[in-house]
Amino acid sequence: MPYNKITTNHLDQLKSLNPRLEISNLKEDIQNASHDETEDFNYPPEAVIFAKSTKEVSQVLSFAYENNIPVTPRGAGTGLSGGALAVCGGIVLSLTKLNKIIEIDEDNLFAVVEPGVITQNFQEAVEKIGLFYPPDPASKGSCTLGGNLAECSGGPRALKYGVTKDYIYGVEAVLPNGDIIQTGGKLLKNVTGYNLTQLLLGSEGTLGVITKITIKLLPLPKHKQTLIIPFGSLEAAAKMVPIAFKNGLTPCAMEIMEKEAVQCASEHLGKSFPNATAEAQLLVELDGNDLGVIEKDLEKITELAMNHEALDVLIADTSAKEKEIWSIRRACGEAAKKDAYYKELDTVVPRASLPKLISGVKKICQKHQVTSICYGHAGDGNVHVNLLKSGLSDEKWQKELPIVTQEVFELTVSLGGTLSGEHGIGWLQKEFLPIAMDKLVIDAQRKIKSAWDPKNTLNPMKIFPTQ
Amino acid sequence: MPYNKITTNHLDQLKSLNPRLEISNLKEDIQNASHDETEDFNYPPEAVIFAKSTKEVSQVLSFAYENNIPVTPRGAGTGLSGGALAVCGGIVLSLTKLNKIIEIDEDNLFAVVEPGVITQNFQEAVEKIGLFYPPDPASKGSCTLGGNLAECSGGPRALKYGVTKDYIYGVEAVLPNGDIIQTGGKLLKNVTGYNLTQLLLGSEGTLGVITKITIKLLPLPKHKQTLIIPFGSLEAAAKMVPIAFKNGLTPCAMEIMEKEAVQCASEHLGKSFPNATAEAQLLVELDGNDLGVIEKDLEKITELAMNHEALDVLIADTSAKEKEIWSIRRACGEAAKKDAYYKELDTVVPRASLPKLISGVKKICQKHQVTSICYGHAGDGNVHVNLLKSGLSDEKWQKELPIVTQEVFELTVSLGGTLSGEHGIGWLQKEFLPIAMDKLVIDAQRKIKSAWDPKNTLNPMKIFPTQ
Repeated sequence: MPYNKITTNHLDQLKSLNPRLEISNLKEDIQNASHDETEDFNYPPEAVIFAKSTKEVSQVLSFAYENNIPVTPRGAGTGLSGGALAVCGGIVLSLTKLNKIIEIDEDNLFAVVEPGVITQNFQEAVEKIGLFYPPDPASKGSCTLGGNLAECSGGPRALKYGVTKDYIYGVEAVLPNGDIIQTGGKLLKNVTGYNLTQLLLGSEGTLGVITKITIKLLPLPKHKQTLIIPFGSLEAAAKMVPIAFKNGLTPCAMEIMEKEAVQCASEHLGKSFPNATAEAQLLVELDGNDLGVIEKDLEKITELAMNHEALDVLIADTSAKEKEIWSIRRACGEAAKKDAYYKELDTVVPRASLPKLISGVKKICQKHQVTSICYGHAGDGNVHVNLLKSGLSDEKWQKELPIVTQEVFELTVSLGGTLSGEHGIGWLQKEFLPIAMDKLVIDAQRKIKSAWDPKNTLNPMKIFPTQ
Repeated sequence: MPYNKITTNHLDQLKSLNPRLEISNLKEDIQNASHDETEDFNYPPEAVIFAKSTKEVSQVLSFAYENNIPVTPRGAGTGLSGGALAVCGGIVLSLTKLNKIIEIDEDNLFAVVEPGVITQNFQEAVEKIGLFYPPDPASKGSCTLGGNLAECSGGPRALKYGVTKDYIYGVEAVLPNGDIIQTGGKLLKNVTGYNLTQLLLGSEGTLGVITKITIKLLPLPKHKQTLIIPFGSLEAAAKMVPIAFKNGLTPCAMEIMEKEAVQCASEHLGKSFPNATAEAQLLVELDGNDLGVIEKDLEKITELAMNHEALDVLIADTSAKEKEIWSIRRACGEAAKKDAYYKELDTVVPRASLPKLISGVKKICQKHQVTSICYGHAGDGNVHVNLLKSGLSDEKWQKELPIVTQEVFELTVSLGGTLSGEHGIGWLQKEFLPIAMDKLVIDAQRKIKSAWDPKNTLNPMKIFPTQ
């Protein structure tokens, strides 16, 4: 469906609808909104609107719906699948100014927040009073909770504590036509109608714009301990992962990094990583309320690792060292992408298939002479494969990239996996979706999208392949 | 939309489509399928079909869809909201013969099962190899996993471990038109398209018939300990619940029972309950892998309880005693309903509002002279309110019941709660749904239902109020 371009008449109408609406076509705002952290895309919207209330979100969506103008909702723009790109032009609706922590309810262990709150700010606010919000995407210092909900973000601690969706018990959302709905609440159990909360989570801003979030909190674990376990090969590190779980351990995080990832992240930050020359590292975090239990688990994992090809087991013995180690892990993505051209795949497989995935990816990349750097959430079977242009000619890179991507995804799916564990499909991977899903499943989803957004004005051209 | 009655011609067509299809119009099968555990409803279907494969489910649904015949999917018929009642006649599609445990994958801590597996049988199968499937509805000995998914069942352990939806990572389902879809997989993280798995869970068989289930398993906790804490009033018991959580305890279960519930369940089973004359009891289960930690928590909860009006704290010191105590808790529902006429409400509120809910319910019941028995999952804020006809005249009961129900639900919603925590809305509560949800939210759900089931042949007249 061809969309309408935004005219000054449209803008005048919007302003008369709500004179306080913050509409910008400043070059700087347009430019900021034209890209996210996904490769080198650039899609300038025609206008950026900064919403400051649910009512404003509703006004914008219903106006755009009536006038057939595409709207792309946007948090901090840290997404890795192009979900926040205004690929059809129109309006970018920024939620960054809707950023209040409305309530932290200590009696019920729930919080209510607006979508523009920075994830780490929220975590620090609840930790200050002994509570805990586990999801910790690498971008937590800059990403927003609304964006985390849209992409159902994870992070290292998802291993023990689950991903964003596991903490969201209700939302207020504005549907594509401007209708405002409330779902769920501070309720640990709820079978009252369809689970619209979970339908909206991970729908990448295509079904509604979330304007208020009810978040379950946990008591903050009293203790944690970080271990670094170097291995002689990436495969050996990957093999250790299911072994830990089969032996009854439930670490809080279990991350894998190959040598190149560690080295480029260390260099990028100017920090050193112990045993950095080892081919691969596992980064393990144990947490809990009882120091004795953590120490027992630490002994057990050390023994298991040393019996399964670990080169060493190192303990981050100070909080400073621990922070440094984790900052290096978190910088892997940014560091790997310093090289101007790259593509990041967010493959996920059943945990025990991780060694097969990693060795298969390396073989595919070698066959096509494409450099790859792998790291990620090994305990969840979720590996970020960064394909780098490095020394390849433009022509060779253009030719090989889609082939390598296709082969990696086919391998992933053949191992029982799928295309994205925590980044989403968005704009980047949508043409690959049929590798993971047959037509009937895609059709079932399109029917929901059409039922709520028959004019397809909310975040169009995302998730589903071009028909 | 008026549905077609089933003719011999329809049955002949179905048989020629698949000669092995098990179609019954035996009086016994029709009678069994005409009711569930919800009050005294009786809706005989025109035929019962026992599905033995996904293909058969698809054949039946697509035939019914084409021929405008309603289909009501059914597990063991233990539901408490009338979800499995064939209120429009037509076909009851029984899933009880689709009952294989297909796989228990110890490497990935996942199982794949068919929907007709009895919940307790599945739990015992995984516990035998040291694994754990926590959801434990009171009917676990007879209900099916498919039914648990349809209603997103909970049970006592939901408090620490979450409800059914928290363990389901993928399904195979047949949509109303017969389309077979696969969602999710043995994947701990997955943001690849909409979360259709979670949309189907708790949709009470109105959006699809689940034919295969991918279930996440946990390692079986090594130790558990049951405590019984009698109180001098129901309110005092209710007040203890948020206190435990505010003090950092995370019991596996925290159940509340008023005296009448304990007494009628004890009588019903012919078993005794300690301190049965106390006005209310909390039943607390602690579990974990470290006996020392459990003992510390036990001491802490004992101290807290004794400081907050507990009459005593008793420990179930043998496994036999523990089983007996839990069997009495589980029998509350059945025992309360021996009295021929009753209505069970499945109220749920934020945990800290539990004392207000319970005292409010008692006041409403006293005002209308209706007997009530309350028990349930206090830790989750989920209380089952059983309204009993007892000595009331038919006329008084008919008059007061809808008023009491309405008032209890209005109170629940005013406390931030909703109509059902784990039983579903189904046929029983649908006219009350607008108390908890405004028109826009209900419309948003109807749009999804219409998008997938435009002819409304799959489990019609459930969840949503009559228009």
